[in-house]
Amino acid sequence: MRAVIVSIGNELLRGKTVNTNATDISLSLTMAGYDVLRDLVVTDDIEEISWALMEAIKVSDLVVTTGGLGPTFDDMTLDAVSHALKLPLQENKDAVEILSARYQRLGVQMTPARMKMAMLPKGAIPLKNPVGAAPGVRLKFGRTTVIVLPGVPKEAYGILSSIIDELRVPGTFYYSESRFLESGMESALAPRVKDVMQSLQNRVYIKTHPRQSEAKKPAVEIEILARAPSEDEARELVRSAFTRLLE
Amino acid sequence: MRAVIVSIGNELLRGKTVNTNATDISLSLTMAGYDVLRDLVVTDDIEEISWALMEAIKVSDLVVTTGGLGPTFDDMTLDAVSHALKLPLQENKDAVEILSARYQRLGVQMTPARMKMAMLPKGAIPLKNPVGAAPGVRLKFGRTTVIVLPGVPKEAYGILSSIIDELRVPGTFYYSESRFLESGMESALAPRVKDVMQSLQNRVYIKTHPRQSEAKKPAVEIEILARAPSEDEARELVRSAFTRLLE
Repeated sequence: MRAVIVSIGNELLRGKTVNTNATDISLSLTMAGYDVLRDLVVTDDIEEISWALMEAIKVSDLVVTTGGLGPTFDDMTLDAVSHALKLPLQENKDAVEILSARYQRLGVQMTPARMKMAMLPKGAIPLKNPVGAAPGVRLKFGRTTVIVLPGVPKEAYGILSSIIDELRVPGTFYYSESRFLESGMESALAPRVKDVMQSLQNRVYIKTHPRQSEAKKPAVEIEILARAPSEDEARELVRSAFTRLLE
Repeated sequence: MRAVIVSIGNELLRGKTVNTNATDISLSLTMAGYDVLRDLVVTDDIEEISWALMEAIKVSDLVVTTGGLGPTFDDMTLDAVSHALKLPLQENKDAVEILSARYQRLGVQMTPARMKMAMLPKGAIPLKNPVGAAPGVRLKFGRTTVIVLPGVPKEAYGILSSIIDELRVPGTFYYSESRFLESGMESALAPRVKDVMQSLQNRVYIKTHPRQSEAKKPAVEIEILARAPSEDEARELVRSAFTRLLE
């Protein structure tokens, strides 16, 4: 099953904010059995978000967006979802309830800017935000599930964690392990890496990362990962690849 | 002038590596006068990299790629550039010289895996890597400049820094400033933000980021930025927007 992330926010593209959300979401989805194919990072622009959404939906079973869900004029992810998928925005009763409860606790009134977060694309289900105001959104478009998360990291992670079990790909387990070679160059290992992958019918994936030893000499991190129908099998494949590579 | 970043590497999409390169490159290009429109993060796959390259070139004056430039089988950015732009890979004399000098210093032989980094798309210029082996690459495709950087952060940043002055957009200065409101909610500020931007003919961009005060109460970071033909003018616009917003 394939997943694509859509990260939304000018701050990501001006170098203000490091996109740790994409990393956290990637890890969660990988562990849940998905191949994360792309992360499309776009500005707070309705045409840009729409472009990313459509490109993502074309190639994946699951799209997770992060960012652009708040009360300000440049939070336009839901407008873009509505625009791109041709699903009119409607006041969603459950979302109104979630928001009213939150603002009541904080002792402030509902305002048009706050009500905006309760206008969801037709057919969408709001997802409770355990940390902030804006509810997440879940909807189905053709065969693709679309999950819309806020950009604040704790909120995005909080909502995703609450639904990750429902999203899990059945019968797919992931295992990865890293080892460090204190002396060794990536370029020297390159031919062996290919051979070992082939000898295991490409059921493992081996990636080398150039590092530097404490003595500032070239060192290599070798990362091997596998997916299999059981965790034991995945781990066994990885261990076997390490043995072959390092013998 | 518009720029698009293409970030290449499975490790970015499995949640192993945080894409700090995209942040650093975004900041450098923004300061150099570009609007960074997108960052397309894709896997180590020739079709995926080609897709991202073509989408990037369609909408921008400058494309900067990072990742997939090393000696291993899954370093395939140059193959993808060659494939997507229909520029055959050729042994580049300058690149051979850069690589030979490096490996000689390290006391190791040139091998086919290492020579791979000297096979550049036709018409490309190698860019010296002050830190590692793989040279960067610069080429022109139609009106778009394409810069190909390695994925190792120090190497990517080292090469980009060495050419950023040549890439700078003439006569465009950027200024941004952030202030924190210790009490205040993003949703309360939202209507004023829009008004102030309009009152300055949208020559400034105001972004609010929800934060938390030490007392765990809602707080807001207000970031205002502007581009102008001089740095003074850009700063003046930002200051004037703060005055209007906070009065």
